[in-house]
Amino acid sequence: MKAEIITIGDEILIGQIVDTNSAYIAKELNKIGVSVYQITSIQDERDHILQSLEDASQRADIIIITGGLGPTKDDITKKCLCEFFDDHLIRNKEVLQHIEQLFEKYIDTPISDLNRDQALLPSKSIALHNEYGTAPGMWFEENEHVFISIPGVPYEMRGLMDREIIPRIMQNYSRPVILHKTVITYGLGESALAEKIESWEENLPEEIKLAYLPHLGKVRLRLSAKGDNEESLKNLIDQAISKLHHFIGDIIFGYEDEDPMEVIISRLLAEQNWTMATAESCTGGKLASIFTREPGASVSFKGSVVSYSTEAKKELLEVPEELIEKYSVVSAEVAEAMARGAQEKFHTQFAISTTGNAGPTKGDSNAEIGTVFIGIATPKKVVSHRFNFGNHREKVLGKAVNKAMELLHQSIIDLSKGN
Amino acid sequence: MKAEIITIGDEILIGQIVDTNSAYIAKELNKIGVSVYQITSIQDERDHILQSLEDASQRADIIIITGGLGPTKDDITKKCLCEFFDDHLIRNKEVLQHIEQLFEKYIDTPISDLNRDQALLPSKSIALHNEYGTAPGMWFEENEHVFISIPGVPYEMRGLMDREIIPRIMQNYSRPVILHKTVITYGLGESALAEKIESWEENLPEEIKLAYLPHLGKVRLRLSAKGDNEESLKNLIDQAISKLHHFIGDIIFGYEDEDPMEVIISRLLAEQNWTMATAESCTGGKLASIFTREPGASVSFKGSVVSYSTEAKKELLEVPEELIEKYSVVSAEVAEAMARGAQEKFHTQFAISTTGNAGPTKGDSNAEIGTVFIGIATPKKVVSHRFNFGNHREKVLGKAVNKAMELLHQSIIDLSKGN
Repeated sequence: MKAEIITIGDEILIGQIVDTNSAYIAKELNKIGVSVYQITSIQDERDHILQSLEDASQRADIIIITGGLGPTKDDITKKCLCEFFDDHLIRNKEVLQHIEQLFEKYIDTPISDLNRDQALLPSKSIALHNEYGTAPGMWFEENEHVFISIPGVPYEMRGLMDREIIPRIMQNYSRPVILHKTVITYGLGESALAEKIESWEENLPEEIKLAYLPHLGKVRLRLSAKGDNEESLKNLIDQAISKLHHFIGDIIFGYEDEDPMEVIISRLLAEQNWTMATAESCTGGKLASIFTREPGASVSFKGSVVSYSTEAKKELLEVPEELIEKYSVVSAEVAEAMARGAQEKFHTQFAISTTGNAGPTKGDSNAEIGTVFIGIATPKKVVSHRFNFGNHREKVLGKAVNKAMELLHQSIIDLSKGN
Repeated sequence: MKAEIITIGDEILIGQIVDTNSAYIAKELNKIGVSVYQITSIQDERDHILQSLEDASQRADIIIITGGLGPTKDDITKKCLCEFFDDHLIRNKEVLQHIEQLFEKYIDTPISDLNRDQALLPSKSIALHNEYGTAPGMWFEENEHVFISIPGVPYEMRGLMDREIIPRIMQNYSRPVILHKTVITYGLGESALAEKIESWEENLPEEIKLAYLPHLGKVRLRLSAKGDNEESLKNLIDQAISKLHHFIGDIIFGYEDEDPMEVIISRLLAEQNWTMATAESCTGGKLASIFTREPGASVSFKGSVVSYSTEAKKELLEVPEELIEKYSVVSAEVAEAMARGAQEKFHTQFAISTTGNAGPTKGDSNAEIGTVFIGIATPKKVVSHRFNFGNHREKVLGKAVNKAMELLHQSIIDLSKGN
């Protein structure tokens, strides 16, 4: 089973928006054993849309099309689908009812004919219920191919994928098993790592494909296996990883599972009834916004002081003025005082702090561009670490966030072991 | 001049990463009059890479290929390019020197043959200097087509686009002018807006193409014009927008230019020597992280208290306990007290606060899911506004952030007019 994703919308081709939908769709399809062969982004233009539908059907079994389903004139996907399938539009009563209900409940402006016309669907399609919006999804089957058209609004698209499309594919098609396991390593560059594991890589079973994913200070190794039997694929991967430990066991930091790092940390904290806070200078609230992304974060995450000014460091985190004068705001001493300040102010077991100079120019302190101090306060101690994350602002901030999460994760594990 | 972007990497096709590179490349090409006809994402697989290069050359003049240039075995782009152009690799001395310098300066592990081999380039290509990484870009010209291969690491890609690729395209090719202007409207849905401007839309000059871009509470209208004469296209767009004001002048909020909202706000503040801070409950640091994204933010942005717990609201922002008990944490009174607290603690002219229930379940307060209060403190007053942003967590948070920025922007403008 191969799939292809076609995203329609001039806004992608002129770079006005980033296409995040395709990654979500690809991930969900992959989980159920459908591999995505190609992702194609094209303009809202009739000939190109028709050509792409035709081309995709040569390559893939399932074609998922996003975008171009709005009520206005620039949205032409539905018209093109009618043309492609030699079909015509008919009104769907259930969809119309849903649109009318949405307007009644959430929308101030009165419903118009343009809105009502979103209930007009090609007669050959099955309507897919769009809980969060007025444009329904459409499911077409023709010559062993499935074409699925859904809106490009991300949360509407996700609702349709989760509730309508994935369950239907699982019910109607037999699929192979695809398993991925990603090993997270820290401390070796991509090529140094590759040299160290060369003989391991050469002896991998042929069902397993290896990929190197370097990203801001960590290299992830992704092992992918495809086959019929989940159990035996899982064993193959586990054996390969166990062998990998002989080569680089010291730099394997963990495995990437379904959950991102902030969820893993929140879970560890909640298990022990521990809480955390952040004190952020150079990372400017990024850590806080990551920890509060998930619902229920308030159980373990108590808050953050983003102390972008020296004043705020003194007044809100009670960093002693002498420390700042003696060591400057970018220093181990200030990072530690910030972490201790956040720990006290938010009454938490853990606090993590960042202070540094991300560039592109030198700021208040004389610290070299790229210098970041990360402080960690635990119930047993306060420590800090100094890093130089390079010469590019975004890279420095990204690496600082990753490193802070890594250090916090490690201290939580240490403390739960009594260290 | 048409371009096509090919991104190579299994990680995109399995949804492990979002392809942000294409949007950047598309935007930069568009600015200099090169329109992107298609973006294609494919796996690290020989046949598919060769086929895509061939297909793209049928559709486009400039083909930009990202990804697959790492030093490890899973990266096969260079090999495929050699095959496609019937070429062989030769060592480039300057590139080798650059790689050796990078290792000396920034990398702890010793340089290896895999690293040195990144200086092996196809003999028909021109090397493009990659300031931030070891894999150079490559520029091929063949049969009136240009093929450009660059690494997929975002900041390396951007460096190459800005310093090498865009200048070379500008120097070597004549291009039409492409202009976009985007009008930001608030308060009307996509279809209600379309009905109101129907006759305006029908009478647009044929050089202008219109697109509706609805996004979390605002609808942007993008006017795009393509032609030879920048001045006359600019006039056409200006005239169209001036006519548009007769139809919906009351809901036009502004224009989207190169700068995002946070930059516009920071600039307005800096002009008056004013400063700001945030007090965030439901938005959890998102506002702070947006304002600190740009370098130099510390001139006007002083910091944030992310008060995710009730305790923190009381202790760090001095929200009176009685208010919380009487009105609950999700209330106009608490939003206003939070804004006032941040204004006082950070000694700023402006402060903006958020408190609400983003769902998916009811939290500490009894507030309905989707309810958000936004408070704004200025030197003249403290006000708050109540919103219901719907039933989807991410949508609620996104709309809260957009609305908070909009309200802050408006209060800054009001105060600068003396209101």
